Amino acid sequence: MQSDDGRPLLYLEDFEVGQRFTTANYLLEADAITAFAAQFDPQPFHLSDDAARSTLFGGLAASGWHTAAVTMRLLVESGPRMAGGVIGADAAVSWPKPTRPGDVLHVKSEVISITPSRSRPERGMMVLRSDTYTQRGEIVQSLTANLVIQRRPHGKALKSD
Amino acid sequence: MQSDDGRPLLYLEDFEVGQRFTTANYLLEADAITAFAAQFDPQPFHLSDDAARSTLFGGLAASGWHTAAVTMRLLVESGPRMAGGVIGADAAVSWPKPTRPGDVLHVKSEVISITPSRSRPERGMMVLRSDTYTQRGEIVQSLTANLVIQRRPHGKALKSD
Repeated sequence: MQSDDGRPLLYLEDFEVGQRFTTANYLLEADAITAFAAQFDPQPFHLSDDAARSTLFGGLAASGWHTAAVTMRLLVESGPRMAGGVIGADAAVSWPKPTRPGDVLHVKSEVISITPSRSRPERGMMVLRSDTYTQRGEIVQSLTANLVIQRRPHGKALKSD
Repeated sequence: MQSDDGRPLLYLEDFEVGQRFTTANYLLEADAITAFAAQFDPQPFHLSDDAARSTLFGGLAASGWHTAAVTMRLLVESGPRMAGGVIGADAAVSWPKPTRPGDVLHVKSEVISITPSRSRPERGMMVLRSDTYTQRGEIVQSLTANLVIQRRPHGKALKSD
């Protein structure tokens, strides 16, 4: 059985190291950049193109946390559909370039490792690396997250709900 | 000279390893948790207390990226006031416990290292560890960020603008 959006429900057993996924696109407009910044990262270079010109960024740039939040949205809505949801325990994140107004982002992910839990037979951990690209092919964020993932319950067939 | 809010403007030279800072408080209510999730992390355990009960979280929990965004807001508005702004190049983040509706968050930071740039005499990097606490003294997020920080221009006196 598959979800309404056509993505199969994936348990730990359905993943393998080296497996890759690509999300849909997400347009990040100036209004969204400044609205996020006003709420969570109220610094001149995230609030106003004029104010940003004299800063390190040289023009309006999204908060790195905004890029992270958009990356999460893309993963949740069009990345691998994980049983139990996309739940991160910890992550390493870097922002090699700023995200700019009008950038259209997508995420390419790769499974780095899969580790069944010894103490909890119903789950495991999966390390997923997710790079966030612009329409120009530039990486604006690289995220390596340690995700909690459910194992397939006994008696459930492959890709069955 | 100090900023309007009374925090001195700090350059790389004003920081020292082991220095600590504590922010103000921030109340995170259920409506804010679900609004953030609807926009950036639309999963049942971040959208509805009822839907969350049967999940790993056992009740409504904020998206980890929401906790990160609130942490950034606290650092920007009431953490150390850094010359050039709070600009992260990369970070490691973990979420040891969920953030819950009604939690009042604050952030305690500690300077881990300070490294003047060899190639860019006007700046350096500072590693700042920032733990986000609830009113119960639980850590809901631990963030270790590598920040770009300006050096004091020649001729500017300590804590002068």
